[in-house]
Amino acid sequence: MLTAPASVRKALAASLGVLCAALVASARAEPLPSWNDTGPRQAVVDFVDRVTDEGSADFVPPAERIAVFDNDGTLWAEQPIYFQFQFAIDRVAALAPQHPEWETTQPFKAILDGDLEALAASGEKGIVGVMAATHAGMTTEKFGSIVDSWLEGAEHPRFERPYTALVYQPMVELMSYLREHGFKTFIVSGGGVEFMRRFAERVYGIPPEQVVGSSGIVRYEVSAEGAPQLLKAPEVEFVDDGPGKPVGINRFIGRRPILAFGNSDGDLEMLQYTAAGEGLRFMGLVHHTDAEREWAYDRASHIGKLDKALDEAKADGWTIVDMKADWKTVFSLSQ
Amino acid sequence: MLTAPASVRKALAASLGVLCAALVASARAEPLPSWNDTGPRQAVVDFVDRVTDEGSADFVPPAERIAVFDNDGTLWAEQPIYFQFQFAIDRVAALAPQHPEWETTQPFKAILDGDLEALAASGEKGIVGVMAATHAGMTTEKFGSIVDSWLEGAEHPRFERPYTALVYQPMVELMSYLREHGFKTFIVSGGGVEFMRRFAERVYGIPPEQVVGSSGIVRYEVSAEGAPQLLKAPEVEFVDDGPGKPVGINRFIGRRPILAFGNSDGDLEMLQYTAAGEGLRFMGLVHHTDAEREWAYDRASHIGKLDKALDEAKADGWTIVDMKADWKTVFSLSQ
Repeated sequence: MLTAPASVRKALAASLGVLCAALVASARAEPLPSWNDTGPRQAVVDFVDRVTDEGSADFVPPAERIAVFDNDGTLWAEQPIYFQFQFAIDRVAALAPQHPEWETTQPFKAILDGDLEALAASGEKGIVGVMAATHAGMTTEKFGSIVDSWLEGAEHPRFERPYTALVYQPMVELMSYLREHGFKTFIVSGGGVEFMRRFAERVYGIPPEQVVGSSGIVRYEVSAEGAPQLLKAPEVEFVDDGPGKPVGINRFIGRRPILAFGNSDGDLEMLQYTAAGEGLRFMGLVHHTDAEREWAYDRASHIGKLDKALDEAKADGWTIVDMKADWKTVFSLSQ
Repeated sequence: MLTAPASVRKALAASLGVLCAALVASARAEPLPSWNDTGPRQAVVDFVDRVTDEGSADFVPPAERIAVFDNDGTLWAEQPIYFQFQFAIDRVAALAPQHPEWETTQPFKAILDGDLEALAASGEKGIVGVMAATHAGMTTEKFGSIVDSWLEGAEHPRFERPYTALVYQPMVELMSYLREHGFKTFIVSGGGVEFMRRFAERVYGIPPEQVVGSSGIVRYEVSAEGAPQLLKAPEVEFVDDGPGKPVGINRFIGRRPILAFGNSDGDLEMLQYTAAGEGLRFMGLVHHTDAEREWAYDRASHIGKLDKALDEAKADGWTIVDMKADWKTVFSLSQ
């Protein structure tokens, strides 16, 4: 029996009232506020409604609500060059005093001269050399702290803001909305896993163990002082791009996603693999159509080329986000 | 203002009463009921109390409460042979009719003859051959369903129960207790990741994306019918044992654990890596001392050899679980 005095009952009632008001407000808040009320926003909301409704034939248990997102060009910008490659270039400049030989060796000379044409001419071998020189030969912890410092200090040349300010606000909202509905969100990106993990938690709400990416060989060693440590070696271990994406999903997640979002042909196999699962699926592409607020590029771009995947998305009815038309806001510049 | 009639208030009071009683009962329930009230149980409870107390100098935020567990010999039994190897042997027998050449080829002949000595004589090359013949040449999904069938039908020779009945009840309780206190639990095992993922969620409460293990190469292909699929190739990709364990932890989790549990020298580097982190850490070893209820083995055993790690645990004050003395119950035979 409830025998509390009137004052306690009144206080309880007031608390319950506040609680209920908050619940109602939260339920009424429109999800995805940075999305225009166009097709893609509605497609997302419909999909989430159907897979989370226990009475629906499309219901998916929470443990199987796996959502995967490419990073470069899907969660943050990738122009004029991949941000991680800008990091590598900045590292070459910082390390140059210790490497006088770079003044006469390609592709380092090209970078130090700011000669992007000569850098491009060095091809894949040149790029791999730059990555090895800047991403290896140190412990994983040392590398992490170098990335942290760069993220704090570096600025994007066009927007003059930290690179983490160039994440797409609508995508941050989408991932948060999915998590609120029992999804587990993962990054599945061609970018380096040790690089992305330094900001994914803070910027996207994605913890390190949910970041899948490309990686170099790492070796376990005990230092001369007896400290166990992990050393980054210069050899490539895994390229999480193209057909590597479904392989990475299987290796790291072990379940086929029910939602996948990408922006380029490098995401095609991930989208196909997601689409081929049983039951309702959501496949999304970010189409860069907004030269004013961001960039406009697709079939002819060297970075984030979107050609085959655009055709397949159109043929198969995947959701294509037209950045200019579908996003109210592009960047979350507050970072 | 609360203006509900007396009947509603009465119902509300009754509900609140039931809820409170349940909360109190839950708070009072002794954790880890299958553990005797000896040192290891107390060490676990003390550790969890300290890292979860926000007022403690040892407090660890939930996101960093990473706990890793070896599987064979730590979470389930591993005698008389690793269960996954028994699976491989059973598969050789099942596939033999399609492979008449196995009647005259080692190590398959040895397996078909039940000649474990000849099998052992085939060495690592023989073992790798058996694993390749039974774990590759099919899609990941097909392999998964073969594992499922085996787990359903196979029985352990000594206990005459399914292999999943031979998981250690005290360890299941420990992982559940850690999760209730905000930890994220992972398996980090030399066992095959595609094998363990088939039962880890049901038996241990660990989802596929939190299972780290050894793996073979997997390739993405589109079938003749146009279906994207992942094919298991016969080459080894990653051996998650010994120094491979900290490498696997870095690759899949990206954070250093604060608690690690193993049972053999193959876990030594994982325990050392965990111990070397800053702040309070928990390193545990399951010592197989109970020939009656389970098995008794350590330094001289071919399977689960525990020698160097036992010395280091003693020298460094890690927690050593004496199965006979510290566990009230060994197996959760209900599986």
